[in-house]
Amino acid sequence: MLRRLLLRSRKRRRYSSSSGAAVPLSTPTFAVFGANTGVGKTLVSAGLAAALLNSCSPSVSAVSYLKPLQTGYPADSDARFVFARAPALLRASSSSPRATRLVASRRTLFPSPAVGAEAESLHENLEKVVAFGRDGAEEETKVLACRTVYAWREPVSPHLAAEREGMAASDDEVRGCVEQWLMEEGVGEGGEVWKVLETAGGVASPGASGTLQCDLYRPFRLPAILVGDGRLGGISSTLSAFETLLLRGYDVSTIILEDRDLSNDKFLLSCLRNRAHVLALPQIPEDPSDDLTDWFSESSSVFNSLKDSLQSFHSKRIERLNSMQRKSKDLLWWPFTQHNLVPQDSVTVIDSRCGENFSAYKIKDNRMMLVPQFDACASWWTQGPDSNLQIELARDMGYAAARYGHVMFPENVHEPALLAAELLLGGVGKGWASRVYYSDNGSTAIEIALKMAFRKFSLDHGILADSKTSIKNKRNVQLKVLALNGSYHGDTLGAMEAQAPSAYTSFLQQPWYSGRGLFLDPPTMSTKNEICNISLPQSMQHCPQTSGDTCFPSLTEVFCKTRDTSSAADLYLSYIKQKLSEFSQSSNSDHLAALIIEPVIQGAGGMLMIDPLFQRVLVRECKSRKIPVIFDEVFTGFWRLGVESASELLGCLPDIACYAKLMTGGIVPLAATLATEEVFESFKSDSKLTALLHGHSYTAHAMGCTAALKAIQWYQDPSTNLNLDFDHMKLKELWDGALVKQLSSLPNVKRVVSLGTLCAIELKAEGSDAGYASLYASSLVQQLRREDDIYVRPLGNVIYLMCGPCTPRDSCSRQLHKVLNRLCDLN
Amino acid sequence: MLRRLLLRSRKRRRYSSSSGAAVPLSTPTFAVFGANTGVGKTLVSAGLAAALLNSCSPSVSAVSYLKPLQTGYPADSDARFVFARAPALLRASSSSPRATRLVASRRTLFPSPAVGAEAESLHENLEKVVAFGRDGAEEETKVLACRTVYAWREPVSPHLAAEREGMAASDDEVRGCVEQWLMEEGVGEGGEVWKVLETAGGVASPGASGTLQCDLYRPFRLPAILVGDGRLGGISSTLSAFETLLLRGYDVSTIILEDRDLSNDKFLLSCLRNRAHVLALPQIPEDPSDDLTDWFSESSSVFNSLKDSLQSFHSKRIERLNSMQRKSKDLLWWPFTQHNLVPQDSVTVIDSRCGENFSAYKIKDNRMMLVPQFDACASWWTQGPDSNLQIELARDMGYAAARYGHVMFPENVHEPALLAAELLLGGVGKGWASRVYYSDNGSTAIEIALKMAFRKFSLDHGILADSKTSIKNKRNVQLKVLALNGSYHGDTLGAMEAQAPSAYTSFLQQPWYSGRGLFLDPPTMSTKNEICNISLPQSMQHCPQTSGDTCFPSLTEVFCKTRDTSSAADLYLSYIKQKLSEFSQSSNSDHLAALIIEPVIQGAGGMLMIDPLFQRVLVRECKSRKIPVIFDEVFTGFWRLGVESASELLGCLPDIACYAKLMTGGIVPLAATLATEEVFESFKSDSKLTALLHGHSYTAHAMGCTAALKAIQWYQDPSTNLNLDFDHMKLKELWDGALVKQLSSLPNVKRVVSLGTLCAIELKAEGSDAGYASLYASSLVQQLRREDDIYVRPLGNVIYLMCGPCTPRDSCSRQLHKVLNRLCDLN
Repeated sequence: MLRRLLLRSRKRRRYSSSSGAAVPLSTPTFAVFGANTGVGKTLVSAGLAAALLNSCSPSVSAVSYLKPLQTGYPADSDARFVFARAPALLRASSSSPRATRLVASRRTLFPSPAVGAEAESLHENLEKVVAFGRDGAEEETKVLACRTVYAWREPVSPHLAAEREGMAASDDEVRGCVEQWLMEEGVGEGGEVWKVLETAGGVASPGASGTLQCDLYRPFRLPAILVGDGRLGGISSTLSAFETLLLRGYDVSTIILEDRDLSNDKFLLSCLRNRAHVLALPQIPEDPSDDLTDWFSESSSVFNSLKDSLQSFHSKRIERLNSMQRKSKDLLWWPFTQHNLVPQDSVTVIDSRCGENFSAYKIKDNRMMLVPQFDACASWWTQGPDSNLQIELARDMGYAAARYGHVMFPENVHEPALLAAELLLGGVGKGWASRVYYSDNGSTAIEIALKMAFRKFSLDHGILADSKTSIKNKRNVQLKVLALNGSYHGDTLGAMEAQAPSAYTSFLQQPWYSGRGLFLDPPTMSTKNEICNISLPQSMQHCPQTSGDTCFPSLTEVFCKTRDTSSAADLYLSYIKQKLSEFSQSSNSDHLAALIIEPVIQGAGGMLMIDPLFQRVLVRECKSRKIPVIFDEVFTGFWRLGVESASELLGCLPDIACYAKLMTGGIVPLAATLATEEVFESFKSDSKLTALLHGHSYTAHAMGCTAALKAIQWYQDPSTNLNLDFDHMKLKELWDGALVKQLSSLPNVKRVVSLGTLCAIELKAEGSDAGYASLYASSLVQQLRREDDIYVRPLGNVIYLMCGPCTPRDSCSRQLHKVLNRLCDLN
Repeated sequence: MLRRLLLRSRKRRRYSSSSGAAVPLSTPTFAVFGANTGVGKTLVSAGLAAALLNSCSPSVSAVSYLKPLQTGYPADSDARFVFARAPALLRASSSSPRATRLVASRRTLFPSPAVGAEAESLHENLEKVVAFGRDGAEEETKVLACRTVYAWREPVSPHLAAEREGMAASDDEVRGCVEQWLMEEGVGEGGEVWKVLETAGGVASPGASGTLQCDLYRPFRLPAILVGDGRLGGISSTLSAFETLLLRGYDVSTIILEDRDLSNDKFLLSCLRNRAHVLALPQIPEDPSDDLTDWFSESSSVFNSLKDSLQSFHSKRIERLNSMQRKSKDLLWWPFTQHNLVPQDSVTVIDSRCGENFSAYKIKDNRMMLVPQFDACASWWTQGPDSNLQIELARDMGYAAARYGHVMFPENVHEPALLAAELLLGGVGKGWASRVYYSDNGSTAIEIALKMAFRKFSLDHGILADSKTSIKNKRNVQLKVLALNGSYHGDTLGAMEAQAPSAYTSFLQQPWYSGRGLFLDPPTMSTKNEICNISLPQSMQHCPQTSGDTCFPSLTEVFCKTRDTSSAADLYLSYIKQKLSEFSQSSNSDHLAALIIEPVIQGAGGMLMIDPLFQRVLVRECKSRKIPVIFDEVFTGFWRLGVESASELLGCLPDIACYAKLMTGGIVPLAATLATEEVFESFKSDSKLTALLHGHSYTAHAMGCTAALKAIQWYQDPSTNLNLDFDHMKLKELWDGALVKQLSSLPNVKRVVSLGTLCAIELKAEGSDAGYASLYASSLVQQLRREDDIYVRPLGNVIYLMCGPCTPRDSCSRQLHKVLNRLCDLN
């Protein structure tokens, strides 16, 4: 048994699977993947290293090669092969041979960590300095460093070797070593440093933990060199391997493969057109005694082409990344953004996403870097996937696109739409909903919900003629919604009309907005100084009843059903009744035809928690008056608040509810409006004109439904969602309670709301610093983005952190700590 | 040189790559794919055939095996191997051996078509009848038929063999043979017939034409058996091959692979969880002299498991398909559909899409079938992809999901959003637009466009205070749109308010609709009796001017710019001026703050063609009055009308335009509102409150932008869009002019509009049969769907056919012929 671990002696950044990985871009770095095992990855690494060391323009001063996982060791050592062969090739490969001289060579032996009595206490870090005699110029030294990190004796797949030899290497450990290797500077002096990481086996061969090669290194998303297969069947395995890399979001710079007289390279080239360079190497001698000198010599021009192609790939990549801020300022029009307030250098260039993290392009400490940034907005509250779900979804997206593309929906059925409907009705709609109406986003789902509610109300209250065939113009009748101040339901006009006036609804924004509702002031809830407080609105303080308790030790007591008989319940009910009666007295032709609320938390209104007792009393009162009840669960649905539907927290059910955002696992837009059978029935007749005539081109598109299918199941399954407390079907505490209490006690914090995946912090600010337009939080926001690598986007003075239902709790705590530290510094 | 072609002598249905393929489902049929070449596909075929023939419950009466492409022939013949081995295995594989007796065996030799002097005039169709003695029961006969279709001598990939031996087999030819084989009935009597198609090489090995195996057979989407690789590296190649199949929309029932003591099967099983069965076969003897009798005997239980797993897969598939109509009626709520008018058996069950065709599940002639249906609605006008683009998009969707998932957009930039913006501004926005605002669908794009126009108008016309910081409440000011009767812009309230009253806008549908516009009656254009006629609206007939010519020999004259100086232009202008002046006299506080039109064709209004001269005059007049002009190009954009933007047909440009539908290649929802820099500037200030506060969670989602990027380029590129006349940057005539003229002359046809990808036919109908709610066309619609396999969905009395920009013209003509025949029959 043998296992080698490099770099242990140095200080290591903690690496967690939930975090991304930093990648310096000043050092061109490529990963060598294989279409299969035994296709010559190491030969390519060696040939490339030689071509790089030999290159003058631009001059390469060092090549650092890493083999993270090696089996068959010590008989096989790819690092040693590259180390031994690359310098020898310098002479062979150069078209104008130059004098080379070995300056120094060393093999470093570190003590390995205690890994059991059988483990050897040695590991390998090979480094060589070679002096180059340029024609008539000064001698130039170049460094070649080749390392093996983990090694096993048996020449099998690392996962088997690790199992059989009893030595595992976790993904975090391997990634930690890779990240440290990537971050190392200055192996050589002057000139460029290049790095080459060689994977083990084929693209989808398991690593030591069983994680596939392509998944193991995904957080780095190094540009790939794919070593293809030139044999019979090699076109297929090369293309499939290429597709496996695409399905992980890799960019394949170059495919290089042995030419075995089957012209596989030519076919691949024509097949992939502009997607990748394709290079063919001379046939590799099969005689094991051949030292390959001739082959390398014959191949040197191909390796030079490889080097050129990688150089060009790298410089184009940097060029693109560098131009994106400027171009974005020139061409794009961002939503909710005052372009004058966004300096070009504050635009975030997002190169990719890996689970909860953006990989953002930044200049940090004068180095071009890709830096992981925790997406604390969950990209507008949509994100649920961790990095595993993201890859699973990618596969499903490819499948759904290939199987269905998009197929239109009315009078038709396809499996993803049907199965997703079943899941919705058995999940968030359980116990009340029987129909699913698909649309594109929260806003359209709300417009549809309103149309449903209005029809149901009109029928129930005799507003429509008895016979549906003799429908008269009812334009003198005004249907309005009952809703809460601070509400938000989307940006299309119909959704807007159902919300109270706000910054979003001004004449400047939407001259057609009139606010077709009766908007009540709700009592709100928040934590300050470790206590949960209820704040009563001004309008309620005039009521004769008293509210009773307004302080609670924790949210558990706030949600407790026994409060139904409290004096607060009486207060709320009398307030509601009073408002409804005032409304009905004011006009005969106006009707409150729907109640619409965001259960428990008002999102865009500023992450306000409404007293759930108030909403429960309100819902009951509306139900008793046959006013259809709509829950806008676009934000709160799918575990956002720790339970699948926020109606579980409220303890009451709607007639209609809207879902979107997290529903698709945060990957493509899709929305669903769920309704009871009674609501559905109110659209039935023998005329097409009474049908619900609202549709969008991509209604129930197969991609969205497929994603929903996957994501909803994933969240519900304790084997994939490790945060799930399956017995109680709720999420474990994600935001550490002690830290939240600390936060709530800071002097510059006005209130904290922490529930499920959400932790919102309102900063204290006065006057013009308060409200949506406030820039009060911007310096804090910039610090968190720039220094702490947390991507926050405030709602006025409210800073919030939001994770996914499956985000590991330690990752949440890390982010929360950073915010706490910043806020302490601000004091 | 040798090439074998089977089935030529029989009558063959014409097979075109643009059509799908019919697949009977009463016969369980599977395709055997390989993770690589040489992994034992043929052994699996033979073992499976034996297990099937041996099976009693349910009894299998016949197995038909097809090898469409064989190389290395005649030395290698997989059909012959299966033919020879499967019956021999009956004895070997049965746990309770039963007596078998050969009843008949024949090798049919057909004359091959003339394929050059060197071609042999023989080919092979092997058929064998075996009698089974059941214990104490009557003897039972079973049939095994094994065929080779095309064969080449050299043992290389078919594309190389075809090239070297000078003998090609087109995809259409190969698919035609496969389809005929699939459609054959009754090779055996009583009991089930099973069919097995064995592919050549690995999943992505090229066929004779160079088309990959997985793509060649995609129209049939047969459930797959993937023969995996048990060797070192085999996990990787098996998983990659699996993913390649997923990326073509295949369902992989079972993965079966040789066990080479590396436990590849166990790893695959844990890795794929519920996605596929995994079975391991004993190691295959490497000695070529081994006749494999022992191996087959040892493997018989595995092949029985394979058979069981396929049987269960097949019956579950049928069960699912059979239950979908009922379930859809129970759970779904379709848009624009009166559920009472949809009998359960008229629900279309869509199993998949391949290019322009649905694959629909039907009982046809008492057989369960998957039948290709031409999607003549282009799935609500979204579809552009042919089957090639669909696969390319699938790959890109997988890549985008894996690389980005979704990343939020404000103040951020990612490559797909940026590149798609560049393409939009350089394409449909060329010459006028400088900014792209993304949203989710046509309706949201319109709401955004209106907000843009209103702001621009308000600033230009002094409606907002000079200083933006002192904005007062302007609710007494009424901003309205100038629009046309018959218009349609989407189903959200804001978009609806900008359209004229219609069936969609009644109180029943949307009690909040008021119609905030001045709606003009436009002159319309259509073809009847081979002549293009302009119909003037009633309101225009009172104008003093005359319109001049109202008949044109073709659309070319209608679009001609010389009409600008015609008397019709004068008539239009005076009509428009009169209406505008009437409006401004009626109220001081009302302003026409935007012109919004669908250029050239009003889609949902009934595929009405508006006289382009009228729209041009209207646009010019608005521009002269500083009324911002919005083009709703959601329907007309991206080659729908034969040019990339319908503004090219109109000969004038907007200030704002909306795009969606075809933009993503018809795969996921995404919309874009394009605007001039002047419009963009009107939102700039130093306050966030003047920014355009409209966004959706998935604004500029990476999947949509990636699809747009691909699709827009694909349509523009003559190498991928064969319909493109690159010199004139317009599509060639897609709907055969002669057929269209014939249609326009039928007595039951009121008018025809044929332009670009659209061919619309209005049927003659009177009184209650006219209008959106009409069911007049339903019997014709049912005939076209059921008998002619054209999926049409009428707009009232208007039947239309719509193809994609890349749809082959012969496919269009086939559909048009069918419609013509139906309409002739109706007369």
